[in-house]
Amino acid sequence: MISCRKLLFLLIGCLSFIEMQAQDSLKVYPTHWWAGMKKKDTVQLLLHGNNVRKEEIYMIPYAGVKLIRTDTVKNPNYLLLTLEISALAKPGIIKFEKATVLTNYPAGVSLFDFQLKARNTQNGKTRIKGINSSDLIYLIMPDRFSNGDPTNDRIAGLKDQSLDRSDYFKRHGGDFKGIQNHLDYLQQLGVTALWLNPVLINDMPNRTEHGYAFTDHYTIEPRLGGASAYHELIDSLHKRGMKIIQDAVYNHIGIGHFLYQDLPDSSWFHWWPVYTNTTYKDQVLLDPYASAIDKKRMSDGWFTTEMPDWNQNNPMVARFLIQHAIWCTEEFGIDGWRIDTYAYNDLGFMNRCNKALLDEYPQLHLFGETFVHGIPDQSFFTRNNYNIPYKSNLPGVTDFQLNTYGIVPALTQNFGWTDGVNRLYLTATNDFVYADPMKNVIFLDNHDISRFFSVVGEDVAKQKMGIAWLLTFRGIPQLYYGTEILMKNFSDPDGKVRLDFPGGWPGDTANKFEPGGRTPAENDVYNYVRTLANYRKIAPALTTGKLMQYVPEDSVFVYFRYTAQQTVLCIMNPTSEDKEIDMHRFEERTKSFTKARNIIDGNLADIKNKLKVPGKTLWVGELQPGNPDSTGRTAP
Amino acid sequence: MISCRKLLFLLIGCLSFIEMQAQDSLKVYPTHWWAGMKKKDTVQLLLHGNNVRKEEIYMIPYAGVKLIRTDTVKNPNYLLLTLEISALAKPGIIKFEKATVLTNYPAGVSLFDFQLKARNTQNGKTRIKGINSSDLIYLIMPDRFSNGDPTNDRIAGLKDQSLDRSDYFKRHGGDFKGIQNHLDYLQQLGVTALWLNPVLINDMPNRTEHGYAFTDHYTIEPRLGGASAYHELIDSLHKRGMKIIQDAVYNHIGIGHFLYQDLPDSSWFHWWPVYTNTTYKDQVLLDPYASAIDKKRMSDGWFTTEMPDWNQNNPMVARFLIQHAIWCTEEFGIDGWRIDTYAYNDLGFMNRCNKALLDEYPQLHLFGETFVHGIPDQSFFTRNNYNIPYKSNLPGVTDFQLNTYGIVPALTQNFGWTDGVNRLYLTATNDFVYADPMKNVIFLDNHDISRFFSVVGEDVAKQKMGIAWLLTFRGIPQLYYGTEILMKNFSDPDGKVRLDFPGGWPGDTANKFEPGGRTPAENDVYNYVRTLANYRKIAPALTTGKLMQYVPEDSVFVYFRYTAQQTVLCIMNPTSEDKEIDMHRFEERTKSFTKARNIIDGNLADIKNKLKVPGKTLWVGELQPGNPDSTGRTAP
Repeated sequence: MISCRKLLFLLIGCLSFIEMQAQDSLKVYPTHWWAGMKKKDTVQLLLHGNNVRKEEIYMIPYAGVKLIRTDTVKNPNYLLLTLEISALAKPGIIKFEKATVLTNYPAGVSLFDFQLKARNTQNGKTRIKGINSSDLIYLIMPDRFSNGDPTNDRIAGLKDQSLDRSDYFKRHGGDFKGIQNHLDYLQQLGVTALWLNPVLINDMPNRTEHGYAFTDHYTIEPRLGGASAYHELIDSLHKRGMKIIQDAVYNHIGIGHFLYQDLPDSSWFHWWPVYTNTTYKDQVLLDPYASAIDKKRMSDGWFTTEMPDWNQNNPMVARFLIQHAIWCTEEFGIDGWRIDTYAYNDLGFMNRCNKALLDEYPQLHLFGETFVHGIPDQSFFTRNNYNIPYKSNLPGVTDFQLNTYGIVPALTQNFGWTDGVNRLYLTATNDFVYADPMKNVIFLDNHDISRFFSVVGEDVAKQKMGIAWLLTFRGIPQLYYGTEILMKNFSDPDGKVRLDFPGGWPGDTANKFEPGGRTPAENDVYNYVRTLANYRKIAPALTTGKLMQYVPEDSVFVYFRYTAQQTVLCIMNPTSEDKEIDMHRFEERTKSFTKARNIIDGNLADIKNKLKVPGKTLWVGELQPGNPDSTGRTAP
Repeated sequence: MISCRKLLFLLIGCLSFIEMQAQDSLKVYPTHWWAGMKKKDTVQLLLHGNNVRKEEIYMIPYAGVKLIRTDTVKNPNYLLLTLEISALAKPGIIKFEKATVLTNYPAGVSLFDFQLKARNTQNGKTRIKGINSSDLIYLIMPDRFSNGDPTNDRIAGLKDQSLDRSDYFKRHGGDFKGIQNHLDYLQQLGVTALWLNPVLINDMPNRTEHGYAFTDHYTIEPRLGGASAYHELIDSLHKRGMKIIQDAVYNHIGIGHFLYQDLPDSSWFHWWPVYTNTTYKDQVLLDPYASAIDKKRMSDGWFTTEMPDWNQNNPMVARFLIQHAIWCTEEFGIDGWRIDTYAYNDLGFMNRCNKALLDEYPQLHLFGETFVHGIPDQSFFTRNNYNIPYKSNLPGVTDFQLNTYGIVPALTQNFGWTDGVNRLYLTATNDFVYADPMKNVIFLDNHDISRFFSVVGEDVAKQKMGIAWLLTFRGIPQLYYGTEILMKNFSDPDGKVRLDFPGGWPGDTANKFEPGGRTPAENDVYNYVRTLANYRKIAPALTTGKLMQYVPEDSVFVYFRYTAQQTVLCIMNPTSEDKEIDMHRFEERTKSFTKARNIIDGNLADIKNKLKVPGKTLWVGELQPGNPDSTGRTAP
């Protein structure tokens, strides 16, 4: 039996405890949600705060929203609340209070507010346009492009205070504002979409420049300008009709992430008796003969010692990751997601994650990093024409095959049965395995591989050939920042291909954003990209048109892009000699035409008999009909 | 009005004409058929004789057989009769007589007899066993293995009278009898099936040694001994429980073939305004972007100037080829067909041809030559897991990918991310695209490529590694004659890899069929093949067992073949150094076992901790349980 005094003491004690807790910083993930989402799903709020599990929670009644479930984990600092948000729910604030200990009534003490925002639309339509083969993607490592706001270069309290532009692996100060300052440059170049290396905070002690080690999913990297600058950049892009691609990392986090530092329970990550790295051998996932341990090492081994590997089979982990992807898409208006280290994820999880995003945003483009070897490998990870048990639902991939076994050998190997342009051609012939190869992203280089200009021996003519291929071949072209101004280096170490864009920092000796800051060769290449990329914007043949390619002969690869209305002829001559091309073989595509207008110099060339293509040239020309005769028909 | 005198004159004239014709040599293809074929189809007889189209034909009534159709072609020297042979038809002779000109009654003058034979069975069962992964195929170029009958070395009347063993491209005199004389040798070696390069007559002026230029489908090459010697060889094989694979060439013929020399009509072959060779570019057949002309050049271009390209879309051509395949199978008891230049055929025709053979002989194995580059290419031509419009029904292929991109780089390249044993491993991981990769024929070399011993730098240890791989990996192994006695040479020209088997000719200085004629190294390799091949006969794990392969590490590739009852461990160490293999990773396959018995030396090795594998060794061992304890269970 408890005395009144004792009861009073207990009550005061409780109230003081409540008071204390309310002053503590309670974090809620996601930070907010939206009313009116198309997919009427549930949202799971992850509450993180000291001993939050002890809280009795009372949700102030809110029309259309139900708290249907509360989950705990081993760590008392977490509590998970599952809300059901119906179509009836309107934007507003959902209030969560502490409940009285014994009676479960609201105690009048706020625990947290959870906002249901109105969805962000423009004229009643979504901002999210998606990415497709009409786009030209420009990949930027945000720390390395331009420093638009020097005040955010170092952020007090973050572990990495390394600001030093002379070191590949230190922060350099680039940010969203720097990118935003150069949208004219990019738009004039012909770019229609930006893909930024990851933008979430990496509060790690070092190597934070690349962004692939998240430490808090709901904080945009403050050294890039944080959420407000990210919003501003994306809104600017959308106003220009340009688009944004975010870089997702589902597979792992930075070891400084709060979910690792204050572990909910051991089932959130993959553990090993001794540290075990992934083998980076994606093949075990498709190999009918693979051992269980090799599969486990590939999928559950850590990417690096600093990057704990999520257990995506934990439903709470999966929820956390999927909700975050939807949250970012809605919050910022993301048009596409590039998915890092795609093969390393749990592939069942990836299908569920992709589906959740595409159910909500059917126009969204998702493409996975497939830094793998071979068409069977790469195609296994995207929508394909295999009748096999595991069917990927990923719309597209970063097409490493058309790089490593495509444009690179085409311009660096001598012609052989399977070498040189034949290798490029052969790789493209294998497109029959993909459900839609036009959704694959093609590229000359990116942040992980050697810069193309170095790969082709710093040969400006070959750089231009690569660019012409990029802008005329099938798929979605992706340019890496600086390729247009001949930035170079081999990826050894990777920091060497992540140098600053000259002119992006106040006081840079050269400003290559301006014609006057560029060498003649750099201007030549810049103008070449601009001419082709802007032509491409008005040339459906090059974007949505079909491809027809011919068996390479005499070191020369000929292909066409075409629609019913337009035909573009592309002739790749990687040799040093001029080639006289006998055009009769191409009659299936040329028969309605007599001439071609060279897209670069505007000159007309006869395409009926012989066409001379100079050495080291990818000749691009739009086919022209003969003079219409009096009936309006095209003369033969 | 015709007078009696005139009528009599006419009648005498007709009879003289008939008489003259009956003395002419009329050829009938097929030469005979069988009663009781499973597939109740029609048979089309191709009659070839001077002006045979003029004949009125009367078939003497025969129970169960109807002449349902007569076709002509432009050339009057051909006539095609279609017979329907029902289940009622019994073996016997169907007589075809000339019919009277006006009344269509039998004129009492025989035109030809057509025999319906009884099917050739053994104890009521078919002789045809088919080929599967339990077999070891031995490929022989019959002109180059052994001369068992010098009387057939030159055949009077044939164009090639070139007999000269000092010249790669002349005939050497090998024959069926020579092969038959060495069946003990082959059987002791462990061979269970022979694949002979083509055995049909090549009455061509030169290069007749390879056999790929048929000039009459229904004549077995007389220089090999003709039909009777072929029958004898196959019957000997079957008596030994061995099998025979015939080499089919559907795509083309030798230009001396009667059907080209006396052309039925122009639609039987592909013609071009100027001679057009095939491009040898199979990719156009799978390329979604291929042009019509590239596809036509590949499929309808001639294989060489001496090899006219069949138009397999002509139903009479298709009939002729398909009937011949069935005829050979039934006549000689063929267990499998290797199909030459598979990709060059009309692929629709090939599916119909394969189906006709498999409908009649479901146990028959058909495998096509796919001298192509890349898994997508190769798998396109066999049963696969693609959901695409063209579905091949070919059961298997000659697995060039596991050669060019498999065992060859494994033993000739240094270890790299995609090189060395990793290349072999990676190629095998792509097996998921095949409907049944166990039906593919794997090999170290054949008559078209360099001899493996030369490819591995005449390194006996590597030759043995290749052989061990061949006899332990997935699929149907095929050995090329002489590989077991270290025959060598690069395929430049191809004649260099088609040398005579030493000892196959009377008076040869060395007889390598006998241990005493072989060098110690040759005996070493011969014995190595024999040991493994004979072990393989009693090791289901190696023939029908599953494969499990592990990601190669430290230059070493480890794989297992296993059934519920038997497990064989294979460790490929192509380096020059001994390797201590940490066995813990392989526990999924080794957990029920403690030791392995080396198949070559019989020694037991511990497999629980470390296993030492000498340099340049493919270590093959059968796993052994621990000593059974008193309960009969295996101790841990």
